[in-house]
Amino acid sequence: MLSDIALRDILSFHVGGELVELRDQAVQHVKVSPDAEARVVDLNGHYVNGQIYAQHFRLSRPAAAFPVLFWHGGAMTGVTWETTPDQRPGWSSIFLRSGYDVVVSDAVERGRASWSPWPHIYDSPPLFRTMEDAWHLFRIGPKAGFHQDPALRRAFDHQRFPVNAFDQLCAQFVPRWTTNTALSVAAYLKLVARFDKVIIVAHSQGGWFAQRIAAAIPEKIAAVVLIEPAGAPAMEKMAIEAAARVPHLYVWGDHCDDNAAWIPYKSDAVAQAERLIRAGGTADIIDLPTLGIRGNSHMPMMDDNSHEIAGMVLDWLARQNRVETAHEGDRATV
Amino acid sequence: MLSDIALRDILSFHVGGELVELRDQAVQHVKVSPDAEARVVDLNGHYVNGQIYAQHFRLSRPAAAFPVLFWHGGAMTGVTWETTPDQRPGWSSIFLRSGYDVVVSDAVERGRASWSPWPHIYDSPPLFRTMEDAWHLFRIGPKAGFHQDPALRRAFDHQRFPVNAFDQLCAQFVPRWTTNTALSVAAYLKLVARFDKVIIVAHSQGGWFAQRIAAAIPEKIAAVVLIEPAGAPAMEKMAIEAAARVPHLYVWGDHCDDNAAWIPYKSDAVAQAERLIRAGGTADIIDLPTLGIRGNSHMPMMDDNSHEIAGMVLDWLARQNRVETAHEGDRATV
Repeated sequence: MLSDIALRDILSFHVGGELVELRDQAVQHVKVSPDAEARVVDLNGHYVNGQIYAQHFRLSRPAAAFPVLFWHGGAMTGVTWETTPDQRPGWSSIFLRSGYDVVVSDAVERGRASWSPWPHIYDSPPLFRTMEDAWHLFRIGPKAGFHQDPALRRAFDHQRFPVNAFDQLCAQFVPRWTTNTALSVAAYLKLVARFDKVIIVAHSQGGWFAQRIAAAIPEKIAAVVLIEPAGAPAMEKMAIEAAARVPHLYVWGDHCDDNAAWIPYKSDAVAQAERLIRAGGTADIIDLPTLGIRGNSHMPMMDDNSHEIAGMVLDWLARQNRVETAHEGDRATV
Repeated sequence: MLSDIALRDILSFHVGGELVELRDQAVQHVKVSPDAEARVVDLNGHYVNGQIYAQHFRLSRPAAAFPVLFWHGGAMTGVTWETTPDQRPGWSSIFLRSGYDVVVSDAVERGRASWSPWPHIYDSPPLFRTMEDAWHLFRIGPKAGFHQDPALRRAFDHQRFPVNAFDQLCAQFVPRWTTNTALSVAAYLKLVARFDKVIIVAHSQGGWFAQRIAAAIPEKIAAVVLIEPAGAPAMEKMAIEAAARVPHLYVWGDHCDDNAAWIPYKSDAVAQAERLIRAGGTADIIDLPTLGIRGNSHMPMMDDNSHEIAGMVLDWLARQNRVETAHEGDRATV
């Protein structure tokens, strides 16, 4: 029996972005509603471009000093952190029940953050994630193991992702662009600026952004948890020294070492962790297979041991917070 | 001081949609992460297409018999029902605090529901909503009253939409298509099928869908509240008779009668209400200007009297529920 979640309120907002103008588009007449006359649709005009969407759950009685900001990965949205594909509580609920205020966001271009026309405003066309790509890249099974008939799919032995709910995972995918990095960093900075100090828990591509933000404004970041980060940002010595002021935790699942995409992503991240340690920082690694926990996919927050992995992250955060509280003794008010 | 919201849980899921396959796309090499090597991106393969996203807030102690499903309008997402653009509580919070379980969804193509490539899977390109279009169509001010500089904008006198937060409203807009009606109806039917019986509160284009669904499965719909519906679906006599089993409420803001888009939308909806009444149904209208309440925009759930209008809707629902309870005495369990 799960405990209730008592909320002071649920706030949502868009942050970042700026007005852009589109010109010289032909005016159209479109039947917008199926049973009404066609009306003029004129795409010329102004748009808000480059915003993030965030949903902020504020507990009645938070136990933690800082809210957790959950940042999703590429071609995904904040849904990553909600109910798992097989309908177990997601990390957003687990962290709320553990006393953390939680902020779940959709990155620029994704989900409720919206996206802009190309080639007019964005520089490039979108990329779409196929189920085949996810089967391989998220390390559910061997490349040839996907089949459109669920009964004929072949996952890795001891796979911890709920394979029967793979279609529900794929229903979460959204298109992505590869040319909006600067726009995204700007919006994430503005998101963090709305809080005194935050913990960032980031997945995959979101981990790349979290590392950049930690190096840019370390004084605002109490800790960074990188769940299978897709590599590490290239950083100068000064940026590494700044990032080293923020405790980093890396979490890795299984089968990274025989996947062509994950071999370089993981080795880049491990090299970055070593740089942080050499600069005097904390960079801890939970490598699940090394601990004897086999079969985790790229989505540990959805795997059948997601609750156990959340527990490891919460324990690590509690240890950082003790240090943090002792050093600073401040308390976030939002 | 607002009361706390005690939740049993927060569930989210995608519903509807089916697997589609894309073929004969050229394989690309794309630098997906800014600091990693380019990798193969192959768009050939399977996708989930046509799903809805829903977030279900379940109260610890709901007072109402049925959950409220909030359906947004065209080029918008479920954010319509959340915190207002000027950061007051939205209708989803107001209804939760009034004892209703609440389900906020993103329609097919929109927000966290995702969208599919065209012309490969969708039949047509997306439409984007300009700020100029919204200024006029949402009846914030006269057509020429929009300016990119907020200080130079000219709204209608006594405008109740929080004009200073108009950019925050525009940050909520998402692209839309006009060719996914059948897909959307199918997904909405599947969403409703997950519940015993529901109340639908729908805005603008969402009102068109709500009317269609009420006529299709009246036994599942306790009431329909249409906030400024964008017209009415064309219906045969049998569909009208089915829809007449469901109590309908229509809510209208100001300035409908001098707006070229809203004149036919409203007259179509009013004619539909008259058909429902002739078929023995309940079709009540709250026409705010007729009640002496001037200045409401197309977004009454965001206007400065949004709380008061929510109260009128809640009072009307309570009256329908009394009748409902007396007739049937059943209670939704989800």
